[in-house]
Amino acid sequence: MALLIVITGYQANPWVSKLQAFEPKLDIRVWPEVGDPDEIDFALTWRHPMGELKKYRNLKCIASMGAGVEHILCDPDLPHGVPITRIVEPSMSQSMSEYVIMVVLNYCRHNDLYRKQQIEKQWRVKIPIRARDLGIGIMGLGQLGGDAAKKLSHLGFQVAGWCRTPKMMNGVITYSGDNQLIEFLAHTRMLICLLPLTAGTKDILNLDLFNKLQRGAYLVNVARGEHLVEEDLLEALETGQLSGACLDVFRNEPLPEDHPFWRHPKIVITPHISSLTIPSAVVPQIIENYHRALSGNPLLNEVDVTQGY
Amino acid sequence: MALLIVITGYQANPWVSKLQAFEPKLDIRVWPEVGDPDEIDFALTWRHPMGELKKYRNLKCIASMGAGVEHILCDPDLPHGVPITRIVEPSMSQSMSEYVIMVVLNYCRHNDLYRKQQIEKQWRVKIPIRARDLGIGIMGLGQLGGDAAKKLSHLGFQVAGWCRTPKMMNGVITYSGDNQLIEFLAHTRMLICLLPLTAGTKDILNLDLFNKLQRGAYLVNVARGEHLVEEDLLEALETGQLSGACLDVFRNEPLPEDHPFWRHPKIVITPHISSLTIPSAVVPQIIENYHRALSGNPLLNEVDVTQGY
Repeated sequence: MALLIVITGYQANPWVSKLQAFEPKLDIRVWPEVGDPDEIDFALTWRHPMGELKKYRNLKCIASMGAGVEHILCDPDLPHGVPITRIVEPSMSQSMSEYVIMVVLNYCRHNDLYRKQQIEKQWRVKIPIRARDLGIGIMGLGQLGGDAAKKLSHLGFQVAGWCRTPKMMNGVITYSGDNQLIEFLAHTRMLICLLPLTAGTKDILNLDLFNKLQRGAYLVNVARGEHLVEEDLLEALETGQLSGACLDVFRNEPLPEDHPFWRHPKIVITPHISSLTIPSAVVPQIIENYHRALSGNPLLNEVDVTQGY
Repeated sequence: MALLIVITGYQANPWVSKLQAFEPKLDIRVWPEVGDPDEIDFALTWRHPMGELKKYRNLKCIASMGAGVEHILCDPDLPHGVPITRIVEPSMSQSMSEYVIMVVLNYCRHNDLYRKQQIEKQWRVKIPIRARDLGIGIMGLGQLGGDAAKKLSHLGFQVAGWCRTPKMMNGVITYSGDNQLIEFLAHTRMLICLLPLTAGTKDILNLDLFNKLQRGAYLVNVARGEHLVEEDLLEALETGQLSGACLDVFRNEPLPEDHPFWRHPKIVITPHISSLTIPSAVVPQIIENYHRALSGNPLLNEVDVTQGY
């Protein structure tokens, strides 16, 4: 009986140490050092290599390390009938809101400028942007967008939100539907994308939308890389319609080395960490599901494969 | 009748434009382009050159641009009998809390690391520090420290505070007096100094205190440069007792070009901007005092020179 960690693009070590700390006797294997594949009961995965999971014929559960399971469901060779679980954790909106607040404050307080000035030993003050003078517009007011909107509003920021269907939120001006999108954008100086990725929102961050924002607006994309038309961002930065962008998600991850975003002076890049799963926060539910899977009990947060979540 | 701006170390332009926007007919002079000194009724100052203010014999008010007036009172040649005013503004604790939250989030989310990685085109994730796992200790629970403590606690951080006399705060573990200082420090991984500068707090951030913190603790000084023994910080960083520091205030400001802090890889420097006066927020009370001074009415926020605030 063993738990296999199959992860690409991230390190397995933090998971191993937190799992061990929580359950010292657990037999943990880290792909590709699998040992006997028949001993693997449970796979904890993030972007596993396609076809890998069908090698384990005693697998009783495939557990995503995150909230999403697209990276599992997209495997055409997924073993049939093995239940799939995902993480449902309030720490994810906590993590996302922290990231968004960090980006907003670094912007208002000119932190990047001060980092450059320190290198040049320059003592020069730039007046900050006041919280109530920055028009923040959040696209998407679900669990993540709603939490970020509330927390920014509580910190004194002027926050508006846009989503598909009308929604009321204390301290947040809300807009909804296509007919209110233009008005929402016209009030926005910092646009934060927290939309789900659907056929209707794919490529929504495009030149046409950027041109409806205040001139010199700043873009933050923490949703999915497929929301953004990358060439359109480069063009809007070139013309000055956008003054900068902070991107945590990309169409290709890891972002390829030759991608123009890496060295663009107006683009800030982080490696998809805005709402990172924190192992210590989710290890208890993973261990719980491990025991449930072994004993045949119903799993927590099992995914309905037909719906995709 | 004219208002004179006397400022060193910062730019006068934002003040001129905000004053003009608020009161277009105001005759504004910017030192050293004073014109006829007898026409100056009102001096708006920040770190004026010593002896400068006695040149204006019709001066009816000396107004500090900030909350503090040490920079005025330290002038041995201050004209006698001219009332001195300071700024009292809620936007100052707002500004300070924003700065403190920014520093805390950049620390927990490893923002400096990601800035370096972008330069090297590296896509590598480091697990963030969870808000509830970071022991934040705030020294000083006055208007500024209290506001920062409340807001950090609301964001899910584990916050403790220390001050001279016992104080109760929702969501904040409070310690007080010399006999609880050691216990407070033992729980602190990020120490934020927001103390007033007094004979009892001068040099309080010294090696003896650093050694009572958790090993690898991080220091944030946003109070006064004189709180910190600079050589002791360098030594604590050298031994690893402190892992880093973010400093906004210094014994000598602007920080001299040859100061070792500028190029220290573990020190983040900002040019005294944590609780910067934002001109547009305080211009109304300055203009109000200008009119009061001209008409001989009682001034807002006049300083008691014998007390120093």
